[in-house]
Amino acid sequence: MTGTRPGADAEGPDHAAGGVPTTSIGPITQVRIVGTGLLGASLGLALRGHGVDVTLSDPSPTAAALARDLGAGRLVDPADDDPDLVVVAAPPDVVGAVVLDELRRYPRAVVTDVASVKAAPLQHARAGGADLRRYVGGHPLAGRERSGAVAARADLFTGRPWVLTPTRESDPVAVRRVRDLAESVGAVVSVMDATEHDEAVAVVSHLPQVAASLVASRLRELAEPAVALAGQGVRDVTRIAASDPVLWTQILAGNATAVRRVLRLAQEDLAELVRSLDALADGPAAEDVVGARGVVATFVARGNEGHARIPGKHGTAPTTYAFVPVLVPDRPGELARLLADVGAAGVNLEDLRLEHSQGQPVGLAEIAVLPAAAATLVTALRERGWSVQT
Amino acid sequence: MTGTRPGADAEGPDHAAGGVPTTSIGPITQVRIVGTGLLGASLGLALRGHGVDVTLSDPSPTAAALARDLGAGRLVDPADDDPDLVVVAAPPDVVGAVVLDELRRYPRAVVTDVASVKAAPLQHARAGGADLRRYVGGHPLAGRERSGAVAARADLFTGRPWVLTPTRESDPVAVRRVRDLAESVGAVVSVMDATEHDEAVAVVSHLPQVAASLVASRLRELAEPAVALAGQGVRDVTRIAASDPVLWTQILAGNATAVRRVLRLAQEDLAELVRSLDALADGPAAEDVVGARGVVATFVARGNEGHARIPGKHGTAPTTYAFVPVLVPDRPGELARLLADVGAAGVNLEDLRLEHSQGQPVGLAEIAVLPAAAATLVTALRERGWSVQT
Repeated sequence: MTGTRPGADAEGPDHAAGGVPTTSIGPITQVRIVGTGLLGASLGLALRGHGVDVTLSDPSPTAAALARDLGAGRLVDPADDDPDLVVVAAPPDVVGAVVLDELRRYPRAVVTDVASVKAAPLQHARAGGADLRRYVGGHPLAGRERSGAVAARADLFTGRPWVLTPTRESDPVAVRRVRDLAESVGAVVSVMDATEHDEAVAVVSHLPQVAASLVASRLRELAEPAVALAGQGVRDVTRIAASDPVLWTQILAGNATAVRRVLRLAQEDLAELVRSLDALADGPAAEDVVGARGVVATFVARGNEGHARIPGKHGTAPTTYAFVPVLVPDRPGELARLLADVGAAGVNLEDLRLEHSQGQPVGLAEIAVLPAAAATLVTALRERGWSVQT
Repeated sequence: MTGTRPGADAEGPDHAAGGVPTTSIGPITQVRIVGTGLLGASLGLALRGHGVDVTLSDPSPTAAALARDLGAGRLVDPADDDPDLVVVAAPPDVVGAVVLDELRRYPRAVVTDVASVKAAPLQHARAGGADLRRYVGGHPLAGRERSGAVAARADLFTGRPWVLTPTRESDPVAVRRVRDLAESVGAVVSVMDATEHDEAVAVVSHLPQVAASLVASRLRELAEPAVALAGQGVRDVTRIAASDPVLWTQILAGNATAVRRVLRLAQEDLAELVRSLDALADGPAAEDVVGARGVVATFVARGNEGHARIPGKHGTAPTTYAFVPVLVPDRPGELARLLADVGAAGVNLEDLRLEHSQGQPVGLAEIAVLPAAAATLVTALRERGWSVQT
């Protein structure tokens, strides 16, 4: 999904062949990155790959030097410190203050940030009297479980959404420059206002994090034999529960208004479910509790409905894939051999899920393919000796 | 994890070479399966593969005939209807009644079931005056997103946990026969009491289902541009939200007491989190709200702690794998070529995650390997021209 582009320059071509796009305002030649963690260092690596002059700044001189050593840019040299664009990649709780500071320090530069909450930093900058014509908030949805410059990757933004949150005050030229930055590193740009963005991520990112932590937290008190029953469901639901508490405290606190709104709605749904379970557990004969089962079924059915809205690969509408289950011996090269056979059958693998088996040297690979291709694949794999059951 | 085996026969060998294990009570020769959905039909397929005589019964004659046509067994013939073992694979809400009925109908047979809740059916059978010496509850943790005999697989139970819930009344011979059944189809048997089992699955299975539905439900009301921001986190958290509402109503209602206990604890955690977000959203300067951030950080950290308890592959302690990220063009055979190169490097792939990209014909494969193998793999893949960033 690509949002509409504000400003009068919407018609012009904005990409030169290869390298960083040039615009009516000229190419981006020097980018200053403030904060050399995962996002800052990854952006530096990507821009350096396009030959952009990147300067690096971090409250920790060690962190800045590490990012330099990893190839993300050079340290700031007072003799050559004139950025076209400043990217604030600081922790969410200080972004507003740093943006304000950078706008004052570089009066010629456009300033953006990459924080995962957008309304609070904007409010902070506005309250501080910032020149908002030159500030355009941004949020690349490109995190990883690991953090820091050592986890940085030049391709971190490839194919990822990058939301821009310009305001009425934003100069179209500034918006264009930040959009060029995001697109030059392969991101898919969309435009929202800051509050709209924060409400969206409260649902698609912050609520899932809270739910994962909520479920995982209950595993703490379980006896070993009970934990051993954990299957793929609880693994998937709790994967992101391994995230960094400090970062997530900043994110949840920084988006407190939108997150609590969503959590309250979830609390209401949960309370209704618990009331029905109370009726079923304590009621007379369970069959006599009128409506309680209906509430439970509606609860699950609403989840079906919401789940169906998640887009499929490549931002297309959700596709129902056919899953072809194949047993795979747990030895080097076996999965590769399987997938080579899938390729040899001329079938494109749309998704792949590996199920962990317990106590057995064998895994189950579920190969998602377009439904029309499933029969071909099953036949081809069986011919090659794979154990497929449909 | 294998539980201790109750009864006096714990020392004896219980596996013949190949085929179905024989025991001191003789081999299982005829198994009656009541209910020919996914689990019943899969069990029939697996047992038929060992040459066991399987008879099939279902309230729907069409369903029973379909399972027969798929190779799961034969229909019951009054002239030859003398099972050693009856497996009740009926929906959770009728299991108790069917178990009671089968115990009466086949006074020579051991009866088990495969329902995902265990206390309620037992209570029902006991209240009905069942001969509990011959009943041993069971629960294979081997569901799929799809249901019905057409989704059945002979290998459905391979490497999966199968919990047995014998009572004080259970005859050790009966326990042994049910254990033999589960092990003969490749399951990993453990023993718990019924209530202990129900409390365990309330946490590792039913709570995750509720959490997934709770999160997915909120996606219903989102605008398209917001839904488009959905990333891997929300996809993982909500995958099981696509489950069948009717089945899950039976499961949650059947385990109402244990589920509501766990949900109430989750409600308390959630309420505490919301109170902190209220303080942060409404308080004076956010920095001044003493303790609120601590509550949020503790909430996330407890999730870390619980998540770390989930066992790794093969039932071993959790292992921290190194993840090697590689860009993969979205064309048939590319992923296979990558995994072939992983195999050629002599490295065993421990897990694999594919990230869906949006609007780009490229995917990201994250290859999990033992940390000691990561450097070798990165070098090998780069030599073969892959885009790897570590």
